[in-house]
Amino acid sequence: MKNQYPSLLLEKAVCEFAKLPGVGNKTAMRLVLHLLKQEQAAVEAFGNSIIQLKREVKYCKVCHNISDSDVCNICSNPKRDSAIVCVVQNIRDVMAIEATQQYNGLYHVLGGIISPMDGLGPKNLEIDSLIERVAQGDIKEVIFALSTTMEGDTTSFYISRRLKDYPVKLSVLSRGVSVGDELEYTDEITLGRSIINRMPYQINEL
Amino acid sequence: MKNQYPSLLLEKAVCEFAKLPGVGNKTAMRLVLHLLKQEQAAVEAFGNSIIQLKREVKYCKVCHNISDSDVCNICSNPKRDSAIVCVVQNIRDVMAIEATQQYNGLYHVLGGIISPMDGLGPKNLEIDSLIERVAQGDIKEVIFALSTTMEGDTTSFYISRRLKDYPVKLSVLSRGVSVGDELEYTDEITLGRSIINRMPYQINEL
Repeated sequence: MKNQYPSLLLEKAVCEFAKLPGVGNKTAMRLVLHLLKQEQAAVEAFGNSIIQLKREVKYCKVCHNISDSDVCNICSNPKRDSAIVCVVQNIRDVMAIEATQQYNGLYHVLGGIISPMDGLGPKNLEIDSLIERVAQGDIKEVIFALSTTMEGDTTSFYISRRLKDYPVKLSVLSRGVSVGDELEYTDEITLGRSIINRMPYQINEL
Repeated sequence: MKNQYPSLLLEKAVCEFAKLPGVGNKTAMRLVLHLLKQEQAAVEAFGNSIIQLKREVKYCKVCHNISDSDVCNICSNPKRDSAIVCVVQNIRDVMAIEATQQYNGLYHVLGGIISPMDGLGPKNLEIDSLIERVAQGDIKEVIFALSTTMEGDTTSFYISRRLKDYPVKLSVLSRGVSVGDELEYTDEITLGRSIINRMPYQINEL
């Protein structure tokens, strides 16, 4: 089939947008034509926002979260409890936990989880830097807040082995039936584990 | 709720992406973090592709399709039948009809359809330039290939009135296209047949 695009510039832009995850050629075309209808300044703002982010983005040298400065707002906040570190896969998880407003400790962003299928081993992740943070001695508790998948469990297990000689408490997000879920629609593994890991009944916890 | 983004640059980029149609904050975040993982050069290529398109895009001065030159590839192709002009709403419709490989005439891109609700009247569309093209006398047939909606029908009707004193045959896509459907989502076979089976334009058939 011959080239369907009336303009090489258009084709280039559509191809770039179609590289985005979950964006096919038709959606890419729709997005590009939408942008083309906007003002020149708006299009420049759009294009430059991502270029500027990529050029100037920094990662907190303590927790490796995205930051505008060398140490992020969370790590540098004296009101946060620096004795607790929550280990997460990526910055979206930081934002998800922050949105709950239930956690006042610090974070450590691994940048992924151990996944041999994707060629991601411990050396590709911020694990050594986590061990160093713990080795400094101020951290009392490490919370594993990784995906409840084989890869997430493997990563938690690997880190727990690396930390076994340090006097630090290890904990993991509680697993069980989601709040608001019907029991009959909960998957068998979750339900089975939630029976095994049943907790003391306390009215104010529910 | 306090600002959830760990970086102002990140927030800016996410806000820009979230302005795109059909893209919410979560999707915008996913897209931005995906781009952030790519190489510097790839991100620059992405951002610049849309900026360059907006800066340098041209529109064919004959049919108003997007083009890299003053006259587009279709209008300047001597193998195409310049006696037939297919009137479409936008360039996606040109691409959709081209993809059927059933049409060998030229196009005229209106840049929209008459839609008082959206503040689009005949003066906002490339209708005068269509009349001028017809007035030059080389065009024997005008095909209306607009959406089968109230607005599309109104636009066809309006143009047909403007053209009533010219010796030009008016036709319309055969109604194999489902009423209420947008052209760009019509399957190629239906769209191709509707061009081949185009019918004489008569107001009471609409």
